[in-house]
Amino acid sequence: MELWITEQQNENVNFSCRVKKTIYSEKTDFQEIEILETEYFGRMMILDGVIQTTAFDEFIYHEMIVHVPMFTHPEPQKVLVIGGGDGGSVREIIRHSGLVKVDWIDIDGKVIEACKKYLPEWNHMIQDSPVVELQIRDGLAHMKESHGQYDVIVVDCSDPVGPGELLFRYDFYKDISGALKEDGLFVQQTESPFYHRDLIRRIQKDVGSLFPITRLYTANIPTYPSGLHCFTIGSKKYEPSKPSVARVPDFETRCYSIETHRASFLLPKYVKELVE
Amino acid sequence: MELWITEQQNENVNFSCRVKKTIYSEKTDFQEIEILETEYFGRMMILDGVIQTTAFDEFIYHEMIVHVPMFTHPEPQKVLVIGGGDGGSVREIIRHSGLVKVDWIDIDGKVIEACKKYLPEWNHMIQDSPVVELQIRDGLAHMKESHGQYDVIVVDCSDPVGPGELLFRYDFYKDISGALKEDGLFVQQTESPFYHRDLIRRIQKDVGSLFPITRLYTANIPTYPSGLHCFTIGSKKYEPSKPSVARVPDFETRCYSIETHRASFLLPKYVKELVE
Repeated sequence: MELWITEQQNENVNFSCRVKKTIYSEKTDFQEIEILETEYFGRMMILDGVIQTTAFDEFIYHEMIVHVPMFTHPEPQKVLVIGGGDGGSVREIIRHSGLVKVDWIDIDGKVIEACKKYLPEWNHMIQDSPVVELQIRDGLAHMKESHGQYDVIVVDCSDPVGPGELLFRYDFYKDISGALKEDGLFVQQTESPFYHRDLIRRIQKDVGSLFPITRLYTANIPTYPSGLHCFTIGSKKYEPSKPSVARVPDFETRCYSIETHRASFLLPKYVKELVE
Repeated sequence: MELWITEQQNENVNFSCRVKKTIYSEKTDFQEIEILETEYFGRMMILDGVIQTTAFDEFIYHEMIVHVPMFTHPEPQKVLVIGGGDGGSVREIIRHSGLVKVDWIDIDGKVIEACKKYLPEWNHMIQDSPVVELQIRDGLAHMKESHGQYDVIVVDCSDPVGPGELLFRYDFYKDISGALKEDGLFVQQTESPFYHRDLIRRIQKDVGSLFPITRLYTANIPTYPSGLHCFTIGSKKYEPSKPSVARVPDFETRCYSIETHRASFLLPKYVKELVE
């Protein structure tokens, strides 16, 4: 028997990979979770049929969504993560020194539990961290109640369908601005510059109307649609594309460097069109 | 009826897209050619089951394989293209001014004919160019017979299986060096930095033993495996990663700019490992 998983990247494009076995499968109040062992990409988590993270390339996604904003800020002490139930973003954040508090908010406790058990590499050191506080609740509500308290906010959400949809709206970006300190910044994963051009343009416009500095950067993630993925930053003070070298990684990375940080903002013309 | 084409990117990963209709299909002495009209990527050429080029993203591949070496050289007059039967590379080369001769060598005349007829956008202006000379012959033999005559050589070959296999060998790189002028350089497409790491390392070593300057650069091509594609340059004199700004595009591009040229050599750590 051959077992394959197929992701419909859109109605005309499919991406499939061979599966060794299903590790875990559950339908929660919010979504359908599957954790698979694949032949080529290793362990993989799928939510509602969409590939979220794989052992093969999660280091790129998590290093780039976390270290770009974290090394833009000169001294991030209070950090908020919305989503990121697999743990990878929090794992990367707690490698930074000087942290006082990391609030981690995810709506679906079942995802957190499953990833803690079946994706241990994504959760490395999180349980031992004295600064991380996990709350299972709605990120929208948490954001609305937070006022001027975060240095960096990481919105590590799923696609703008299902539970993630409201995290791509103007009102949410407004609440993010309210939750940040006067010199704070936030990052959000914002899909493919090939497949989601209208979405990216709209987000740039919404964030641009709320933040003095709005930037788009990219990273190569082979298991995401088109292999090229976008991240949007809204920043109140610091310029993300020109990080200072005062603080550089004092830990091992597999993708991120200050050079890669800067290069990720140098967009080819067909991506630059999205931000002009 | 639903018509889909599936490419086996490797034995554990498939990429599929919906097909409107088959435009052309033929088995030649060298390979099997298929030209399809796809829903999402537009017109697509497939050789021996492997996607070669699509209307959706061919501009990225052709602009990046051509303009990076062409703008590295201060005054390219004599250029050789090996392969590139769809015409896209020659189309981009003849947009440069100052050309004296473009030799275009492809082993399979059937590919040239089919692309001329069914991929007209790839062949734009080629027929009218007084400098282009097409020869249907073996690129290996042509290279062996050429001595110190080219400024730039573009090896726009298919994968290192089938007719393209011998184009990835040390002996071929030695003949390329012999065919170039004293300040010449060549470029070759060299596959995915995720899927073909051993191949890329071996090419870097072979080219590095023959050329004083060997460089790797990347471009995002969604319809190629992993979405990230490598190009290898061997150069006798000019530094490809730091092009002069004395000559910049005086024609429209959709991907390439001098900034993108420079950025394409700034490799994330997991790619940089391949050249160290």
